[in-house]
Amino acid sequence: MIQTESRMPTAEGVRAATAAVAAILPPTPLLPVEIGGVKAWVKADNLQPIGSFKIRGAWWRLSSLTAEERASGVVAVSSGNHAQGVAWSARRLGIKATIVMPHNAPEVKLANTRALGAEVVLYQRPGEDRDAVAARLIEQNGGTLVHAFGDPWVIEGQGSAAIEIAAQLGRAPSRIVACCGGGGLTAGLSLGAPDSAVHPVEPVGWDMVGQSLAAGRIVPAAPDAPKTICDALQPLATKLINLAVLQGRSEPGVAVTDAEVRAAQRFAFANLRLVVEPGGAAALAAALAGKVPVDEDTVIMLTGGNADPAAFAATIAGDG
Amino acid sequence: MIQTESRMPTAEGVRAATAAVAAILPPTPLLPVEIGGVKAWVKADNLQPIGSFKIRGAWWRLSSLTAEERASGVVAVSSGNHAQGVAWSARRLGIKATIVMPHNAPEVKLANTRALGAEVVLYQRPGEDRDAVAARLIEQNGGTLVHAFGDPWVIEGQGSAAIEIAAQLGRAPSRIVACCGGGGLTAGLSLGAPDSAVHPVEPVGWDMVGQSLAAGRIVPAAPDAPKTICDALQPLATKLINLAVLQGRSEPGVAVTDAEVRAAQRFAFANLRLVVEPGGAAALAAALAGKVPVDEDTVIMLTGGNADPAAFAATIAGDG
Repeated sequence: MIQTESRMPTAEGVRAATAAVAAILPPTPLLPVEIGGVKAWVKADNLQPIGSFKIRGAWWRLSSLTAEERASGVVAVSSGNHAQGVAWSARRLGIKATIVMPHNAPEVKLANTRALGAEVVLYQRPGEDRDAVAARLIEQNGGTLVHAFGDPWVIEGQGSAAIEIAAQLGRAPSRIVACCGGGGLTAGLSLGAPDSAVHPVEPVGWDMVGQSLAAGRIVPAAPDAPKTICDALQPLATKLINLAVLQGRSEPGVAVTDAEVRAAQRFAFANLRLVVEPGGAAALAAALAGKVPVDEDTVIMLTGGNADPAAFAATIAGDG
Repeated sequence: MIQTESRMPTAEGVRAATAAVAAILPPTPLLPVEIGGVKAWVKADNLQPIGSFKIRGAWWRLSSLTAEERASGVVAVSSGNHAQGVAWSARRLGIKATIVMPHNAPEVKLANTRALGAEVVLYQRPGEDRDAVAARLIEQNGGTLVHAFGDPWVIEGQGSAAIEIAAQLGRAPSRIVACCGGGGLTAGLSLGAPDSAVHPVEPVGWDMVGQSLAAGRIVPAAPDAPKTICDALQPLATKLINLAVLQGRSEPGVAVTDAEVRAAQRFAFANLRLVVEPGGAAALAAALAGKVPVDEDTVIMLTGGNADPAAFAATIAGDG
């Protein structure tokens, strides 16, 4: 059993992570957007070097490793964006990275992860337990697990977006609407923006953070959970470390449909000239569908832009 | 005969335009890009509110009009992006705008221009003389012509990008690679960045600025000029005011093929997560094709992002 929840993430940790991220990554643009006649903002983290916010948490985690830990390498489990964040950071720090990815991850994410120099180990989704695959690798070869969301450094690193947003806006946003998978980003934002309402947005049927928040305990995904185009937002369950941070801090979860996500991708294409992948468009989908309040101090996070070309083409041509 | 070339644009005018633009538009992002292993920069003017750099020149021209001129309205001729810049600025300043556009302009540009409150008058392309249509409108109804490139204020306004880039980079770029239609942007950049090499990039067969620079006189487009997907870069000829600025300041012109432009659009989609229209991708196409030098202080301008969805889908799916 690998222990990833060695400590709780803190607001102080988010501030330290923000400084570490700022030292290596320029702030992503905060761009104006009009939603139903209301002017608001989008935080374009799809413009990060790896095309997603995941670079924040991965960089903070890996740059916080001891020399001894770095020498043993890192192992991560990811559908693709965390994979690229870990691979990018590992290459920069000279650390060996092994990433466990689903066999049906988007080709672009598999290719990008390999191009960044990481070793990719595939597992069957659904079916195989990806955490077990990672645990076996670590038992065999050693290394530090860099969990995609259930890790205090990763949570703090993702939270750097909140402090970056406040600096760009010149004040705390009224609310931050965020795409949510396992809850690493929303937990980080909740710590980094204590005066803002943080809304986690998940795919219908995969709203495991929203359901867990409502139940007050971890609710796993149903074995017969519906398909979703949001490949980045399909964790089997959130983790206690995420729920502990979110409980009492986060707004209730919101769930969006595939059709709403596609409409958001088309909106970003036509009005923002940005490429947003399905999982990266969930927060915008909720705002456009009127499922979260929007005012002039609202920030909607665009969390990823690693879109499969064929699927994106079908979506913007209107037949996807 | 309408006189648009009433004075020459100046470097001082570019500085004044930069202040006027900065007062109303936040700087567009300067983003890192890697071209053939060399790190360089893209200036993402496709992220302007109207999706193109044309908002710069239009704003400086319209905000410089006298109260009397404002009351009479403005008339512009444009394939779509200048149209939106003029319409956006006119609405903000409470000026009536009439825009002469080709009947076969991309639907997205016609729709956006009308949505911004401008009256659109269509002409046949090829065939009708669009400048004559505009002249007739002004004879009948009055108003000030806002030429898309042959106007000193428009040139100065476009040049604001150069000063914005230098401020973001912290120094003068070694070179700026710019998509070029009539030469308004490249003329403005040449004035605003006197210490940088400015490279105009045009579609093959429509390189009227490059040919005019080489010939030392205005060379009009051939009647049998080939088709190009760069709808924004098809002026019938540059104007004397542009050539006078560019001669002795600009680098020689570079011409790119449709295939090179599509490859640049795909590169921007996959690596930058940005939507770039064909005419907005010409400079990037030249850099990727090795037709201009690229070093770490090179800035490549992405000038527009108003892409037709069906055409963009075909391009990124690889069958366009």
